Amino acid sequence: MYVILVYDMGEKRVGKMLKLCRQYLNWIQNSVFEGEITDVKLKELLINTKKLMRQEEDSIIIFKSRDQKWLEKEVYGKEKNSLDNFL
Amino acid sequence: MYVILVYDMGEKRVGKMLKLCRQYLNWIQNSVFEGEITDVKLKELLINTKKLMRQEEDSIIIFKSRDQKWLEKEVYGKEKNSLDNFL
Repeated sequence: MYVILVYDMGEKRVGKMLKLCRQYLNWIQNSVFEGEITDVKLKELLINTKKLMRQEEDSIIIFKSRDQKWLEKEVYGKEKNSLDNFL
Repeated sequence: MYVILVYDMGEKRVGKMLKLCRQYLNWIQNSVFEGEITDVKLKELLINTKKLMRQEEDSIIIFKSRDQKWLEKEVYGKEKNSLDNFL
């Protein structure tokens, strides 16, 4: 399936969250990730996320779509350099 | 159509962007909005956004879907209080 993941985490956890998400999805904006992912991998990501986040302070929203074709993406302004994904 | 809008703006412009987006969409996370919007209204929002943003520093990504039913949303952690939308 195709997912968009956006997070809003406390400063102390943001670096770890970034590192975690990059193991599963593509980084497209500051705290936004997207990509194809299997059910199993998404569950794994969520388990790890829950270990990391503070329920009462942090927020994670996931949009799931069976197929990327149902979504059209438009980017304005600075595009995230694909090189960033390797840093 | 249904859209998800995420932005990453310089600190000086972030307040104005928030104010602008709230005129058109629902605020669901720090810099994330969603909602039903017409083509005309989305164009208007984009024109106003482009006046506000710095092309070389800021980034806006819009995901469009013909129908919200193609997308499933899951929220973990702190949900944005709907009251926030009136503040």
